[in-house]
Amino acid sequence: MLSANDNEFLTRTGPGTPMGDLFRRFWVPVLIAAELPEPDCPPVRVGVLGEELVAFRDTNGTVGLIEGRCPHRRAELFWGRNEECGLRCVYHGWKFDVNGNCVDMPSEPPESQFRDKVGIAAYPTREWGGYIWAYLGPPDLPLPELPEFEWAHVPESHRYVSKKLQQCNWAQSVEGAIDTAHFSFLHMLVGELPPDAPAALRYMKADGSPKFTLQPTDAGFVIGGARFAEEDSFYWRITQFLVPNHSLAPGAERGQNINGQTWVPIDDHSCWIYTYTWNPDRPITEEELAIIKGGKASIHSIVDEHYHPIRNRDNDYLIDREAQRTASFTGVQGISEQDACIQDSQGLIYDRTQEHLGTTDVAIIEFRRMMLRMARNLLEGQEPAEARNGRAYWVRSGAEVAPRTTSFEEVAADRTAAGEAGP
Amino acid sequence: MLSANDNEFLTRTGPGTPMGDLFRRFWVPVLIAAELPEPDCPPVRVGVLGEELVAFRDTNGTVGLIEGRCPHRRAELFWGRNEECGLRCVYHGWKFDVNGNCVDMPSEPPESQFRDKVGIAAYPTREWGGYIWAYLGPPDLPLPELPEFEWAHVPESHRYVSKKLQQCNWAQSVEGAIDTAHFSFLHMLVGELPPDAPAALRYMKADGSPKFTLQPTDAGFVIGGARFAEEDSFYWRITQFLVPNHSLAPGAERGQNINGQTWVPIDDHSCWIYTYTWNPDRPITEEELAIIKGGKASIHSIVDEHYHPIRNRDNDYLIDREAQRTASFTGVQGISEQDACIQDSQGLIYDRTQEHLGTTDVAIIEFRRMMLRMARNLLEGQEPAEARNGRAYWVRSGAEVAPRTTSFEEVAADRTAAGEAGP
Amino acid sequence: MLSANDNEFLTRTGPGTPMGDLFRRFWVPVLIAAELPEPDCPPVRVGVLGEELVAFRDTNGTVGLIEGRCPHRRAELFWGRNEECGLRCVYHGWKFDVNGNCVDMPSEPPESQFRDKVGIAAYPTREWGGYIWAYLGPPDLPLPELPEFEWAHVPESHRYVSKKLQQCNWAQSVEGAIDTAHFSFLHMLVGELPPDAPAALRYMKADGSPKFTLQPTDAGFVIGGARFAEEDSFYWRITQFLVPNHSLAPGAERGQNINGQTWVPIDDHSCWIYTYTWNPDRPITEEELAIIKGGKASIHSIVDEHYHPIRNRDNDYLIDREAQRTASFTGVQGISEQDACIQDSQGLIYDRTQEHLGTTDVAIIEFRRMMLRMARNLLEGQEPAEARNGRAYWVRSGAEVAPRTTSFEEVAADRTAAGEAGP
Repeated sequence: MLSANDNEFLTRTGPGTPMGDLFRRFWVPVLIAAELPEPDCPPVRVGVLGEELVAFRDTNGTVGLIEGRCPHRRAELFWGRNEECGLRCVYHGWKFDVNGNCVDMPSEPPESQFRDKVGIAAYPTREWGGYIWAYLGPPDLPLPELPEFEWAHVPESHRYVSKKLQQCNWAQSVEGAIDTAHFSFLHMLVGELPPDAPAALRYMKADGSPKFTLQPTDAGFVIGGARFAEEDSFYWRITQFLVPNHSLAPGAERGQNINGQTWVPIDDHSCWIYTYTWNPDRPITEEELAIIKGGKASIHSIVDEHYHPIRNRDNDYLIDREAQRTASFTGVQGISEQDACIQDSQGLIYDRTQEHLGTTDVAIIEFRRMMLRMARNLLEGQEPAEARNGRAYWVRSGAEVAPRTTSFEEVAADRTAAGEAGP
Repeated sequence: MLSANDNEFLTRTGPGTPMGDLFRRFWVPVLIAAELPEPDCPPVRVGVLGEELVAFRDTNGTVGLIEGRCPHRRAELFWGRNEECGLRCVYHGWKFDVNGNCVDMPSEPPESQFRDKVGIAAYPTREWGGYIWAYLGPPDLPLPELPEFEWAHVPESHRYVSKKLQQCNWAQSVEGAIDTAHFSFLHMLVGELPPDAPAALRYMKADGSPKFTLQPTDAGFVIGGARFAEEDSFYWRITQFLVPNHSLAPGAERGQNINGQTWVPIDDHSCWIYTYTWNPDRPITEEELAIIKGGKASIHSIVDEHYHPIRNRDNDYLIDREAQRTASFTGVQGISEQDACIQDSQGLIYDRTQEHLGTTDVAIIEFRRMMLRMARNLLEGQEPAEARNGRAYWVRSGAEVAPRTTSFEEVAADRTAAGEAGP
Repeated sequence: MLSANDNEFLTRTGPGTPMGDLFRRFWVPVLIAAELPEPDCPPVRVGVLGEELVAFRDTNGTVGLIEGRCPHRRAELFWGRNEECGLRCVYHGWKFDVNGNCVDMPSEPPESQFRDKVGIAAYPTREWGGYIWAYLGPPDLPLPELPEFEWAHVPESHRYVSKKLQQCNWAQSVEGAIDTAHFSFLHMLVGELPPDAPAALRYMKADGSPKFTLQPTDAGFVIGGARFAEEDSFYWRITQFLVPNHSLAPGAERGQNINGQTWVPIDDHSCWIYTYTWNPDRPITEEELAIIKGGKASIHSIVDEHYHPIRNRDNDYLIDREAQRTASFTGVQGISEQDACIQDSQGLIYDRTQEHLGTTDVAIIEFRRMMLRMARNLLEGQEPAEARNGRAYWVRSGAEVAPRTTSFEEVAADRTAAGEAGP
């Protein structure tokens, strides 16, 4: 349970908010790289942390992320023409480069120097791991380091990246991801499992009350959830939370693809979830891609051309009550949609003054403690060290069956190390 | 005319409002019984008096009406699975019975007693007259009596029940029902009536200024509207208002079906109208059912699967101006829709500080006086006696042609008595 | 740039606002005459200057514009029946004539004099130039003069009138019209012009930085924008702004049709633009009508049956990015739609505290100065003289190529005089 004040503090990320300031110390994804597929392609609106921006890829292939409005009469630059190394407002032809400089102002006489006075905010960007990232923080600070995620280092063939709209506040959606007890319910099948069901599914169905261990990492913390497996073993699911807004999912067994998500607030009532799947050792196979794009057993969602999930808050996720009775716990199709539906249902901003947390919510408690502490520290001038330690993100998540005598420290040491060919 | 303060007082029914408290002293319909057709059927969202609840029918057939959110992390219980005698939240499997007790908490260790601490609000329910009713009042008070409506006592074959959404505040819609002068206009045909038109229609067309007499009853008051009929007679239309939210309509001649409506606020800008037709003496006939479902000459509305009228505020009730010119006063099809359209048009909440009431508005004035008085009395600790006098609802409404020498007292005594086989 | 206070002052026109008071000193169009095509036709809702009214044409052909609600119980008169010389509320039959008098009250006894006490506001109207105009000002003032626009004087065959919804505040849309520098960009073609392109188009494409001269007129001011034409000449575009809400467009060469627009706020976030094309000397030709209705090279918009543009804010004006790359500066089809899109993009109410005006914005600065001054003067009791000088509106706009030695005074004197057969 949080006080109303702390709940505000945790959830608000607009300009000038403490949590917004903390987010602005890190690189955040703002687009899939493919949304700006080539030089001089059409500009794209970017809503991020309560700001309305526009992104474009210039003639050199460089990505610009600038204020969304022309400084002249505040027409939206979304309507602009992406021309030779600059985005030109279609109202009076003012043209801005990726650094926000006004490089042409044809509505003024040639001798005018007005254009030197009307530059607009531009944010540094990087392409990294299939996404475009931006730094929205104070320009006088040195740039943070990019998070050295393993999935950003593997060849493109080894990963699949997507994004999806989530119609609620970012923080409750993160909490849903690091609360891995819910797999025994929200994502579970109804009735007897088929004889060929994976052992992991059997363990999760049988034990809905996993025992959690948390361990700090250089970028956040790692969460171990132990369920009873065979008589002498535990089935461990190991999840990473990495500040301020990443989580790596616990489902991958050795050799399997690993999944992760990064939450980026659009405003306080919605966020983008950047969703990625990677294999450290080999390309994603065609069969795996078919499952990913099939929208059932995947962290990726079936979305429309605006990356809005087809099954969403507005259509009750197309719940099928007969399927709920006979097949799946929710009657909602898709792992991703099951998560989205239950997180949305907590409200546009989840009211944490009314909750009753149990023993499986330890990771959620630690997440809030960590985020509130970091944001308070920043208010007092203490910059987050994680923003300067990209190497700290070189970790994995995953699942493991281990003897009951093995400690979580040992399991985690073995299963959370990323590959040796790292950054 | 009301002061702005009194208008607020009359119209607001959320938790903690005086009028909301008064409503909470009575049983109110919250669903058609058929919305929960069988044991363990899907749960249904219930919005009532500003509260967001969920209803379900358990394995024994008992109806539960409980808080709409799981106390754990406030996921909506609407998504829940209706299992063996309880509704199970699909997030972590917490299960609640019809009394709001948490009867299973599989995400906690078996020895945990946490579940004894997290019960949620549950409201008593009854099935009565084809509807599910709930008592949302203080649990420490004795339950009110159910209103002993005749239509709730007759065999199912003798009644037809429905509901429809009204897109405005409840009180102005009640006022529309007890203001029966409007039939001479709002529901009237244009031009000469056909020779075979019922006499009642002729009387109403000819006399738009009925003389009203009010008479208190044990549950509210009865309204007599007298129009000139033949030279020596009056055509009386007798309407019942029964506190806090029922009205029986005046159209039924002897032997004909009788209609009534009950208003239940969803919030301050919309309400459900529970609509019923009954015959004390015989089954509703196929021909009558066809008229009811035809959506023209009926108090019942043509609705979609969510009980939203097909003709509604958002599509201007599909007004047909040519029909208005040549056939009906409004050009809107349906008695129910004509009422809905004109009541909606008064605004989401009708501003009673700007009106000019006339001589036909005496029932409206008495309705407001009675409701304001009862709510003020309750504020001062005086409970409404009507809530403990279900027998007071054992009345009828109807129409009658009587000699001009007969007083309303005599007409009413004869025509408003319900059958002898009463409660 | 305006202060936040001045921006409020300029943009708000509801009842009781200073700018709303100024608007209420003038006749304003409220409908196309054809929206009330014949005596006793259906009434029409009119939203104007934050007021909700209803208009009807009575049996004599006289147009009434009265309060939108019946004084009895505030039902919307939009639902009313337009009967023998009056609009009858369908709730209880109260009937109002074009002067707002209650002329029938059949729900009251014949002897009642209640109807003399419940008249409603009625505004004077005039049919003028194909539109219905209303005066919403103080009834104790003498009526203003109608603006003696040339297009209102020509035969019907010589003009084409329409209207279209604009989804933003009125003032920024006026500013878009009197800022004629933008034609070199917003409405321009991409790449080399075809050899047969009009000279005017060549001049505008070549010179995006016209030099502006303003000159006061009896009804506002006239704006001359000079672009380099041939070596010894300027291409002048001459625009009229006429208080409080009219502009005549600068494109017409001698003998060509002239265009103009009049802005009428519905509320502070939307307005109607009344749009007109006229030829002083001859009928509009079939070819010209085809272009007007084709929705490409025209100030008129393609609208639906509610006069809402097909290409609008909600569908991003159906921008075609490929067309933007290869054909037109915006990729949006239609001169009217290009204006609408960029004006809407400034926000529902353009925030003038954040702009950076340049040398081409002199007319905008003067517009604001004039409007703020007039509204302030009115607050201090000084009525606007223009409202009593209809003859001051007897002017034209247009384009002209003139020797560089000719002053704007000379060009304007020649080109802005309306025909001699004036009022």
